[in-house]
Amino acid sequence: MLHEECGVFGIFSPIPDNLAVTVYDGLSALQHRGQEAAGIAVNQDRQISFEKGCGLVSEVFGKDRLKRLPDGKIAVGHVRYATTGETSEINAQPLVIKHVKGKLALCHNGNLVNGASLRKALELEGNIFHTTSDTEVIAYLMTKHRLKTPSIEKALIETMAELKGAYSLVMMSPAKLLACRDPLGIRPLCYGVTPEGKTVFASESCALDAIGARFVRDVAPGEVIVVDEKGLRSFRNHCDTKPKALCVFELIYFARSDSIIEKVSIQEARKQAGRYLAKAHPADADLVIGVPDSGLDAAMGFSEVSKIPFGTGLIKNKYIGRTFIEGGQRRRENLLRLKLGVVKSAVAGKRVVMIDDSIVRGTTMRRIVALVRDAGASAVHVRVSAPPFLNPCYYGTDVPSRDKLIACGHRIDEIRAHIGADSLGFLSVDEVLRLYPEKEPSEFCAACFDGRYAAGAPADFFEIRS
Amino acid sequence: MLHEECGVFGIFSPIPDNLAVTVYDGLSALQHRGQEAAGIAVNQDRQISFEKGCGLVSEVFGKDRLKRLPDGKIAVGHVRYATTGETSEINAQPLVIKHVKGKLALCHNGNLVNGASLRKALELEGNIFHTTSDTEVIAYLMTKHRLKTPSIEKALIETMAELKGAYSLVMMSPAKLLACRDPLGIRPLCYGVTPEGKTVFASESCALDAIGARFVRDVAPGEVIVVDEKGLRSFRNHCDTKPKALCVFELIYFARSDSIIEKVSIQEARKQAGRYLAKAHPADADLVIGVPDSGLDAAMGFSEVSKIPFGTGLIKNKYIGRTFIEGGQRRRENLLRLKLGVVKSAVAGKRVVMIDDSIVRGTTMRRIVALVRDAGASAVHVRVSAPPFLNPCYYGTDVPSRDKLIACGHRIDEIRAHIGADSLGFLSVDEVLRLYPEKEPSEFCAACFDGRYAAGAPADFFEIRS
Amino acid sequence: MLHEECGVFGIFSPIPDNLAVTVYDGLSALQHRGQEAAGIAVNQDRQISFEKGCGLVSEVFGKDRLKRLPDGKIAVGHVRYATTGETSEINAQPLVIKHVKGKLALCHNGNLVNGASLRKALELEGNIFHTTSDTEVIAYLMTKHRLKTPSIEKALIETMAELKGAYSLVMMSPAKLLACRDPLGIRPLCYGVTPEGKTVFASESCALDAIGARFVRDVAPGEVIVVDEKGLRSFRNHCDTKPKALCVFELIYFARSDSIIEKVSIQEARKQAGRYLAKAHPADADLVIGVPDSGLDAAMGFSEVSKIPFGTGLIKNKYIGRTFIEGGQRRRENLLRLKLGVVKSAVAGKRVVMIDDSIVRGTTMRRIVALVRDAGASAVHVRVSAPPFLNPCYYGTDVPSRDKLIACGHRIDEIRAHIGADSLGFLSVDEVLRLYPEKEPSEFCAACFDGRYAAGAPADFFEIRS
Amino acid sequence: MLHEECGVFGIFSPIPDNLAVTVYDGLSALQHRGQEAAGIAVNQDRQISFEKGCGLVSEVFGKDRLKRLPDGKIAVGHVRYATTGETSEINAQPLVIKHVKGKLALCHNGNLVNGASLRKALELEGNIFHTTSDTEVIAYLMTKHRLKTPSIEKALIETMAELKGAYSLVMMSPAKLLACRDPLGIRPLCYGVTPEGKTVFASESCALDAIGARFVRDVAPGEVIVVDEKGLRSFRNHCDTKPKALCVFELIYFARSDSIIEKVSIQEARKQAGRYLAKAHPADADLVIGVPDSGLDAAMGFSEVSKIPFGTGLIKNKYIGRTFIEGGQRRRENLLRLKLGVVKSAVAGKRVVMIDDSIVRGTTMRRIVALVRDAGASAVHVRVSAPPFLNPCYYGTDVPSRDKLIACGHRIDEIRAHIGADSLGFLSVDEVLRLYPEKEPSEFCAACFDGRYAAGAPADFFEIRS
Repeated sequence: MLHEECGVFGIFSPIPDNLAVTVYDGLSALQHRGQEAAGIAVNQDRQISFEKGCGLVSEVFGKDRLKRLPDGKIAVGHVRYATTGETSEINAQPLVIKHVKGKLALCHNGNLVNGASLRKALELEGNIFHTTSDTEVIAYLMTKHRLKTPSIEKALIETMAELKGAYSLVMMSPAKLLACRDPLGIRPLCYGVTPEGKTVFASESCALDAIGARFVRDVAPGEVIVVDEKGLRSFRNHCDTKPKALCVFELIYFARSDSIIEKVSIQEARKQAGRYLAKAHPADADLVIGVPDSGLDAAMGFSEVSKIPFGTGLIKNKYIGRTFIEGGQRRRENLLRLKLGVVKSAVAGKRVVMIDDSIVRGTTMRRIVALVRDAGASAVHVRVSAPPFLNPCYYGTDVPSRDKLIACGHRIDEIRAHIGADSLGFLSVDEVLRLYPEKEPSEFCAACFDGRYAAGAPADFFEIRS
Repeated sequence: MLHEECGVFGIFSPIPDNLAVTVYDGLSALQHRGQEAAGIAVNQDRQISFEKGCGLVSEVFGKDRLKRLPDGKIAVGHVRYATTGETSEINAQPLVIKHVKGKLALCHNGNLVNGASLRKALELEGNIFHTTSDTEVIAYLMTKHRLKTPSIEKALIETMAELKGAYSLVMMSPAKLLACRDPLGIRPLCYGVTPEGKTVFASESCALDAIGARFVRDVAPGEVIVVDEKGLRSFRNHCDTKPKALCVFELIYFARSDSIIEKVSIQEARKQAGRYLAKAHPADADLVIGVPDSGLDAAMGFSEVSKIPFGTGLIKNKYIGRTFIEGGQRRRENLLRLKLGVVKSAVAGKRVVMIDDSIVRGTTMRRIVALVRDAGASAVHVRVSAPPFLNPCYYGTDVPSRDKLIACGHRIDEIRAHIGADSLGFLSVDEVLRLYPEKEPSEFCAACFDGRYAAGAPADFFEIRS
Repeated sequence: MLHEECGVFGIFSPIPDNLAVTVYDGLSALQHRGQEAAGIAVNQDRQISFEKGCGLVSEVFGKDRLKRLPDGKIAVGHVRYATTGETSEINAQPLVIKHVKGKLALCHNGNLVNGASLRKALELEGNIFHTTSDTEVIAYLMTKHRLKTPSIEKALIETMAELKGAYSLVMMSPAKLLACRDPLGIRPLCYGVTPEGKTVFASESCALDAIGARFVRDVAPGEVIVVDEKGLRSFRNHCDTKPKALCVFELIYFARSDSIIEKVSIQEARKQAGRYLAKAHPADADLVIGVPDSGLDAAMGFSEVSKIPFGTGLIKNKYIGRTFIEGGQRRRENLLRLKLGVVKSAVAGKRVVMIDDSIVRGTTMRRIVALVRDAGASAVHVRVSAPPFLNPCYYGTDVPSRDKLIACGHRIDEIRAHIGADSLGFLSVDEVLRLYPEKEPSEFCAACFDGRYAAGAPADFFEIRS
Repeated sequence: MLHEECGVFGIFSPIPDNLAVTVYDGLSALQHRGQEAAGIAVNQDRQISFEKGCGLVSEVFGKDRLKRLPDGKIAVGHVRYATTGETSEINAQPLVIKHVKGKLALCHNGNLVNGASLRKALELEGNIFHTTSDTEVIAYLMTKHRLKTPSIEKALIETMAELKGAYSLVMMSPAKLLACRDPLGIRPLCYGVTPEGKTVFASESCALDAIGARFVRDVAPGEVIVVDEKGLRSFRNHCDTKPKALCVFELIYFARSDSIIEKVSIQEARKQAGRYLAKAHPADADLVIGVPDSGLDAAMGFSEVSKIPFGTGLIKNKYIGRTFIEGGQRRRENLLRLKLGVVKSAVAGKRVVMIDDSIVRGTTMRRIVALVRDAGASAVHVRVSAPPFLNPCYYGTDVPSRDKLIACGHRIDEIRAHIGADSLGFLSVDEVLRLYPEKEPSEFCAACFDGRYAAGAPADFFEIRS
């Protein structure tokens, strides 16, 4: 099972339209959730066509490739973050499969806890797999249940009873668009309507904004929504009323600043993190700066409480992308200087508070601190808008193994010394669960920080290598 | 079920080596059997990696892509002829699947008669399909049997009992290279050894020559051969002794002139077709020419018997390939002039006998006759080194449906008038079954000409649309 | 003459090294100055090799293409902004030409005022041109003078006497690296040294930072610098002491926020623009936001003076690049929503001051104002950190013709009504010339705003169409 | 000066039409003359657009790129054979330059003897060069003369007076299509008309056939032909009546078998070479085979005279193209086996006469002889349809330097031993000059065999390295 973060998108139109271009736009707005692969499937008169490949949406879909997709009434799309290698192309989504009732196109964001054991059980029945992803496990379960149930939505509900872990799914059968979220609501999913009456599902509300759709509401944890010619229907009773467990790392890092998830403004949550840091870890400084992009909002929150002026101290080179030439050790060191420019005139002679969203290995942060000092900062106080990473995530966040996490086995002061900062402060677990004060801490999952796995951990967790 | 002709290749090396480049070379020698897609899978320490895509071997595998494949002890490859569209990339082979005992990479040349009904039965058990090809059906059957048998070769033998139709298979499990041919031996398959002791399977002997391997023998109809660390083992008893049914169109058109299949020299078989034509359909003429490439050998046979001099009257432009720009009606007409140049100095003022391997719709032949007349030929006598096409092929040859076959519903003289020839003669069915006089006519399948389907026809034949 | 903005880079190493990768990095840091084409030339033992093409640095130079360039002691590179069409590939730089004394590789940022007349005169002498760019004119003049002078630097000095307009040049002969700036210093150019002793020229200091070089100083207006085996030599006396005329639009828009040009911090100049706006055009508002990226610094300056809180109201989608699929009218309107996301939680219910760097046609600004209102802003006060565009630029800034400039022929209030803002304020010409208070207004060129052309206008200005 | 063989094509249409596709087809028929680069320029209303690049016509011109070219009344095109490296892309033709009277697009087949000295003289006048090809020298001379003459055709006539060597040119000015051949007629060039009244120039008549044009006649040595709105005009008086000197290697190797050059049928000339060989170097053998493609016609001629049956002994794999993966020594040896398949059934046990068009280094021939022996031939008698290569060609044929020519310094018997043949016979110089018996030997150039340079040799021959 590969750990991954992804973005999903789906649309239903009462009349046939060029939906591929709308999905293209929606996926572009979700591109920050995954840059490794992208795909779109369109349903034209019950026939499902698809195109997918490795790269950004704009790289996979040149003009010609987008035009190959027909007009239709239903379409789904996916952007994917994943490790490289053999599996990346074959694991690109939508996963389109054929079963006896027709084709099914699935888009999945999340990670199953029992994916490996479900796959093993399926294999023991003689089933074959083309991919290494959980999504194909879900496709099998859907198919098995579909044979015995009168509708695809019933098959989905029965499938959900077998799944453990995080999943926001958007899928398309010959006649229906379906969406669901796992009972804990670990990964986000919302829907809206366009002025012309199309129904749209997306991982984040920023994708609704991008295509001019009006946000209606989040898909509820455990909810199944079906859209077809007869309209939209919701199914909820099948799930136990469980406490919710939205991933806090969505707030801190994954989601785009202008998205609103479960009524939480992402920008506001990040500013709140900065405010907490200013109170818990004040610093005697002249300037607050953020590491772009996700450290900026927290820096403004820190400035607001501390009254230390906010400024732009680091400039991100937006042209350094996926295809940029990398190289040996010397080159890797240089790459940071290419990615981040320091505004000398802003930091020279100043005592600087610098805020970033996380520290994983510590290597990158050490280099950034050095860059800022080289530019003349007289002190660098690092504040991190998240608690220290201590545990793996089984629900789709790519946290490295414990031996690579600097916070496992090192005290805060050791980390501070390692990164060369004058002081270092992390957000506390209590604070991270209160980034949106109107919500209960119990409505979030922060297992990577506190080890309390809302959806459990794999009984016998292991990585299946393809 | 897509009708298709393909080429398969497999290699086992006692010690790890760069097998990908050998498969690349072998597939290049089989390229005439399929230009739509190509793929290579390599087994390194029980891990199977693969690369595949649409296009010629040299287009799919640039230097970088070939280098991505590791060294290993086993490798298989495939070239594919197929219709265009959505399915072509996803249907590229080797088909690599995962089941509970590990990965399996399959390469298939042929077409099942009961592929659709086997697929339907599998779907009704809740199995899902990613491709539209028979090969995935075979993969499922292999997997189901493998669960209940101690070895992959037993699973293959049990699978063969369920398959009806044409199949030459080369496949690779974590530890073994396997090859088999259907009990009628409809499609060719042979094997050889290299000077360094590698065992090689290939659709045609020309691929053994190309990589410097010594031809050992044809895989027998119904035979299963396994190669692994312990050596090579053959299994034959499982199959009823059936009469053989090698596809005659392999001799007339598919195979390369320098291949030897079931001890038949392809070049010699084609010359024999020309000799028969010269006896059965003599012509009062000054020159014998062939339509390149496959009409040339027959033209030499015709010349040998008729004593009319052989000459080169048509030059094929070898640069007009798959990516050549096509266009409207006017352009399609021009394309023939681009593909074939007439040697005016050779044909001007001459009565010409022109030999081609087949007439399907008659359109192309009409244009060629006109070209040769325009170049000054005083008469054009067309001879065809095959009988008229009258029936569909269910075993992998892409014969169009009957309404597109000019020989269905037109007398020979009507066809002659349509193509504008001075006379027209076809090979008879008796002659086509005696292209290699040392063999019995009953050892060949000529169903496309005589309607006698050696492996039966689908009970309820229909095209499954994806 | 095509109007264009570009970035130039050059490097001299005492010992042979892989300079191509350093130029690649330097150009990546200058990518904001031109995204249409990129090129690198390397001098290995007096032999000049080059690679160039259309696209971003990372698109033109995949790993293989960069490796084609040899190690060497001298290298130059160029990124180019230009209109599309036939000319874009052929006009990519470095321009590498051969003359009787060897090869010459030229990189040019700027635009000549007398380019067309110089070209005409050269053509009347029987000279031929491959490109439509001024750079080829300069190459000819260099060559003609080189025939009559003992050194390439003398040839450059004599060439400069004939050129009128803006030019920052970096060029490479078989033995020397040369750099110069026009006598008015319209376009920037600076140099630095690396820890290993390499000398580096770049359009902006951010490129020196990116490769770890120490900034030494700006190349002086009119100065010629030569670097070769013997060291670095400067030539200045050949030029009249003219008043300088650095392009103010470099400060407002072109240059990267972390660059320092002629001792002016670009970020500080932009903040100063915001401060001026706050004083001259105050607003009764709750929030100051900037249009990313270049409006952000000015917004912070506005906030600083006005005491209205600064916030992030607009998020730029950094994945919407050059290859993004565009389309008809409806699509173009949607594209803005894709490019800019509004943070509803930040602007809803607020009176907003929004700062952008310029208004050209007014179309884009009207759409942004509408987006911010749709997100719930109760008022939108637009402030522009530049004066209204009134005149064409002859020195390399791509200002559209007067009939497309909304400020030509419309009063401020008409513009305000057109863009739908509650109020509108521009920077004054006086203020724009005082963005860096330590400098005299007379040291800048602001002709696009005030019509005072420091280097004159073409006697008979016309566009040469290729 | 790079030695090169190329193909040129030009067309004039009385009314605007999609000429690019016709040039595409014409170049495809000339593709055998050059596979390294291809280009097309179209003149629409006096504006010249062009596209060119490295690769086959079908590789350079995908559908999109061909569509970029507009309709027009005049168009020219070029295919190029050249060495690899930096120069190949920049040297692709048509060469399109701008001078004071407008644009000029030139296509050149041949090589100047005085190209280096003309270039030197031009450089000493301060002219600059972008390419390393003779064509740019011709462009300069055209431009210089055009300034002083009333018409482009006069400029061409005056330019021809300065050129020494081989050149067949097709060029296009804003209003005219021009074609000329050097006074000795070393390289071929002919013209024809299409049914719709378009005038077409092409290197070989097979390109006229390919686009459905009627052959009118060869362009005469020294002739200039102009086509414009007023019709076609020929200029001949300007040239001394020199003896002609058509390159014999065009007959032996370059030209396509179905072309007719200077009334010589290429196929017939090659068969004549075979007949001469049969008389001068008979062999006691059972079979005559040719090395495809250019050895086949000569083999038939040999068979005709010797009465030894002709057969197909070697099959060329037409899929082994330019992009095929090459490698180390072992791989290079294998490549020949991939390129040529031996028909064992044809050669086994036979004494074989094998005919090829030339022996350069001897390495390839040695491998082919070994392949044929391995396939069971009991004797291999090699006959070469050309005399031994002894001298460099200064007129465009890429003969390697003398130290690489096996015939320089080795007796026939030494060569025979080296290649491992049972006997070896070459065509004599007398015979090669009588390949077309109706023509005088003095009408041909065979300098590469006999050292008599019809157009002289460079006074001080040297290779200019770029």
